[in-house]
Amino acid sequence: MRAFLYRQLFPRGWFHAGLSPANKILFAAILIAVTIAILETEPTLNRDPVLAEIFRAGDWLFALLFSAEYLARVWAAGEEPRYAEWRGRLRYMRQPFPLIDLIAIIPFFISLGTNDAFVVRLARLLRILTLARLGEFSEAAMLMGRALAVRRFELLLSFSMAMGVLIIAATLLHMMEAEAQPAAFGSIPRAMWWSVVTLATVGYGDVYPTTVMGKIVGGITAISAVVLIAMPTGMLAAAFSEVFQAHAKRMREDDDPPPPTGPPS
Amino acid sequence: MRAFLYRQLFPRGWFHAGLSPANKILFAAILIAVTIAILETEPTLNRDPVLAEIFRAGDWLFALLFSAEYLARVWAAGEEPRYAEWRGRLRYMRQPFPLIDLIAIIPFFISLGTNDAFVVRLARLLRILTLARLGEFSEAAMLMGRALAVRRFELLLSFSMAMGVLIIAATLLHMMEAEAQPAAFGSIPRAMWWSVVTLATVGYGDVYPTTVMGKIVGGITAISAVVLIAMPTGMLAAAFSEVFQAHAKRMREDDDPPPPTGPPS
Amino acid sequence: MRAFLYRQLFPRGWFHAGLSPANKILFAAILIAVTIAILETEPTLNRDPVLAEIFRAGDWLFALLFSAEYLARVWAAGEEPRYAEWRGRLRYMRQPFPLIDLIAIIPFFISLGTNDAFVVRLARLLRILTLARLGEFSEAAMLMGRALAVRRFELLLSFSMAMGVLIIAATLLHMMEAEAQPAAFGSIPRAMWWSVVTLATVGYGDVYPTTVMGKIVGGITAISAVVLIAMPTGMLAAAFSEVFQAHAKRMREDDDPPPPTGPPS
Amino acid sequence: MRAFLYRQLFPRGWFHAGLSPANKILFAAILIAVTIAILETEPTLNRDPVLAEIFRAGDWLFALLFSAEYLARVWAAGEEPRYAEWRGRLRYMRQPFPLIDLIAIIPFFISLGTNDAFVVRLARLLRILTLARLGEFSEAAMLMGRALAVRRFELLLSFSMAMGVLIIAATLLHMMEAEAQPAAFGSIPRAMWWSVVTLATVGYGDVYPTTVMGKIVGGITAISAVVLIAMPTGMLAAAFSEVFQAHAKRMREDDDPPPPTGPPS
Repeated sequence: MRAFLYRQLFPRGWFHAGLSPANKILFAAILIAVTIAILETEPTLNRDPVLAEIFRAGDWLFALLFSAEYLARVWAAGEEPRYAEWRGRLRYMRQPFPLIDLIAIIPFFISLGTNDAFVVRLARLLRILTLARLGEFSEAAMLMGRALAVRRFELLLSFSMAMGVLIIAATLLHMMEAEAQPAAFGSIPRAMWWSVVTLATVGYGDVYPTTVMGKIVGGITAISAVVLIAMPTGMLAAAFSEVFQAHAKRMREDDDPPPPTGPPS
Repeated sequence: MRAFLYRQLFPRGWFHAGLSPANKILFAAILIAVTIAILETEPTLNRDPVLAEIFRAGDWLFALLFSAEYLARVWAAGEEPRYAEWRGRLRYMRQPFPLIDLIAIIPFFISLGTNDAFVVRLARLLRILTLARLGEFSEAAMLMGRALAVRRFELLLSFSMAMGVLIIAATLLHMMEAEAQPAAFGSIPRAMWWSVVTLATVGYGDVYPTTVMGKIVGGITAISAVVLIAMPTGMLAAAFSEVFQAHAKRMREDDDPPPPTGPPS
Repeated sequence: MRAFLYRQLFPRGWFHAGLSPANKILFAAILIAVTIAILETEPTLNRDPVLAEIFRAGDWLFALLFSAEYLARVWAAGEEPRYAEWRGRLRYMRQPFPLIDLIAIIPFFISLGTNDAFVVRLARLLRILTLARLGEFSEAAMLMGRALAVRRFELLLSFSMAMGVLIIAATLLHMMEAEAQPAAFGSIPRAMWWSVVTLATVGYGDVYPTTVMGKIVGGITAISAVVLIAMPTGMLAAAFSEVFQAHAKRMREDDDPPPPTGPPS
Repeated sequence: MRAFLYRQLFPRGWFHAGLSPANKILFAAILIAVTIAILETEPTLNRDPVLAEIFRAGDWLFALLFSAEYLARVWAAGEEPRYAEWRGRLRYMRQPFPLIDLIAIIPFFISLGTNDAFVVRLARLLRILTLARLGEFSEAAMLMGRALAVRRFELLLSFSMAMGVLIIAATLLHMMEAEAQPAAFGSIPRAMWWSVVTLATVGYGDVYPTTVMGKIVGGITAISAVVLIAMPTGMLAAAFSEVFQAHAKRMREDDDPPPPTGPPS
């Protein structure tokens, strides 16, 4: 029984490709729980008595399901020698992913145990945290993290340069536009909202330069945004490409018999 | 006669480079039919009696042309043994592309056979579907699809990460701005419109944060958009580059005599 | 004298690196002429009597300078045997670049020879065409063109896909939003303005979806814009990289003595 | 004592990885000084008497700290033979980075020595210049500069093409929209604000075409923006990738014993 649960709940205990049936159900349950948590915040849906009932039933269902899963997972962890005995179980519970599992359950119980509107609302928002559990199922997120780690030096440098341009552009626009638009450019922190919206090329249009000098500096900022975006784009592209290719190669080598290293000479 | 139609209508029956004369005419006819379907929706053009007459003539012309082509194609399909006899013709008609051909003809006849304003309008919009027929003529669309399939794992991961950031950004902005702007940020689904417009760096400017905390979170979201866009950009670039180079190499090998594999030693 | 002019005016007659002194002056003159043509259109500058005088003096100066250069170039072209005699000169004048040179001079004379406000205004705008002459001095523009030509197939395919998505997005938004916003989405051509502004991630904010369904389709369009932009970005990047590297290699090979092809064995 | 200061203040005198303790403190001090300079411009913070006191204390602290550092650095420079004696010190003080150090100190003293509101405000903005000192600590900024230098030819060409499209788009929009929107498109320099905001895909929405022809030209401009951005993106990506890989390789070679160049044969 415990061995069965272990194989079903622990990806490293499942020797077939993909996820185990139990983990597939859990994966879907997490997606549904997050979707409900998102929809519950919408007043036009929340006021509908039928939907409110469904949302409440979902809260109960997922509170029970994720609790049961957590207990089963802690119990089944004993299959691994390092997590055997109650001491091992405590050690397991202190691991990062089991901790996330536990934290993600709490909001479900908070929203069931109180009627205080503010607490209920906060608990609902915290249920979005369940999203973090999806990372657990996926080896790919780890690959992503590794790709970012490999280039952390270059990315930090790009980021620093972008921050430098952000501050300089905000300072210049503050100098040009402070008099004409004190609300938007009256200080450097205010002008930084314009800077960040321009350098990310979002351009909401709530703030923009209106003087001739401000437009000239703003135009140069917009053009330098293209260069600033180009840097991390290229670096990340190369980093992901390398990490995924190395992974694909390792996978092929695991599957295939090792090729002879060369023709006998 | 049937063999001539087969060579003219089926790209795999045409042994020269490019499209056959009949298919070139059809290609142009599809482009013109779609252009007319687009222009017909514009009231200022549609109300003009001369243009309305031209549009109506075009409807008749393309209804007849595409019907004749469909019948000719079904008849000529018999040139291939697997589509011979009326059973083979039925089998041909159930193939994906001939089905698209048939579906794309129907709206032309609907708009001719009725005066009901709603049905005519819907039929006109459905004529845009004729666009899908262009895929038939092109081997390149298949290459595109293959490039996407090769990297489906990485693309799915990028997409999942983008969705995660989308949801988290919407949740945070909802928390920061719900009170100040209930119409735009009063729920997470509402805030997701802001999220998606910001993360794609479109930035219409219909919704944007106005509180200090909202602007800080919004600025971080805008910057993370650059990183999120960088990932699929780099991956797709590499994928397309690989698939097209492999295709170009295969084409060269088909054209040239195979090069000797090495100097005799 | 003619040989001296030939060396000075024809890049292929100048055996040193960079541009000849005469061509450097011409390059600067073209930049100044275009700058004046741009500034002349600004009424606040044009109304200033001193600036108007300077602009008029510039018009005379550049009309004479570019005419003198054109005549000198035609005369000096005789240094090359194929352009010798008056027949050769006519042949030279029919070449693309000399034709551009001639066309770019005409507007300078038109604006001097008339007082008709509309003709003067048009002539001023046509002087912007002088920009095209800069292409003549640069071998790099040719490299750019070659890079685009090498990948024309992939670029055309990307462009076609983008056009397809543009039309489909416009059709869907027209269906969703036509009733709510007839001015912006009342027909597919009108909705295409929204499509193109969204797919290029410009997002002016003059038109955007307001209904729930319109926002969902609009959000998907904005996300697909990222993928559509990623394709040509990657392809062009690879194409330019290849063409410029091949060029750099060729330049090095021209400069250096050819390296020995291998150690003697 | 002087040798100790030299090791602490000069990165080339510090033989361990990373920054020396003194330089770490200076690095943090620069970041804090810039943050204070930014926050000081915000009236809502500046009016608070407690914060104003803190800002003033910070001004004194950093004026003294950076002056002490500058003097120590000039004195310790004598450790290197070329900067020995007072003549050498003068030579050191004329180097670019020490000059930046000196210039960055001046605004701290100006803001302490006067009560003139305009001078104080200008001095505060000039303190942002302290940011430039961060470049001194980092070898990476040099790598960035080298990457840009390697591709300066291609980048200049991309930039020239972008400027060309910018001018042409502005000229065309000026022709299309001047009558409908004289304030925004009444001259080419005015229309260039629209051009640059569109070509960088920022799209504030303060100016956009409203006529049919203007929208068609604007749509083509928006699409060509994607191609124009693709060029420098790809080139910079390749350039950074090359320069950083070459650097990483050099670092590894410095660390490891040189590998045998080949098996003895």
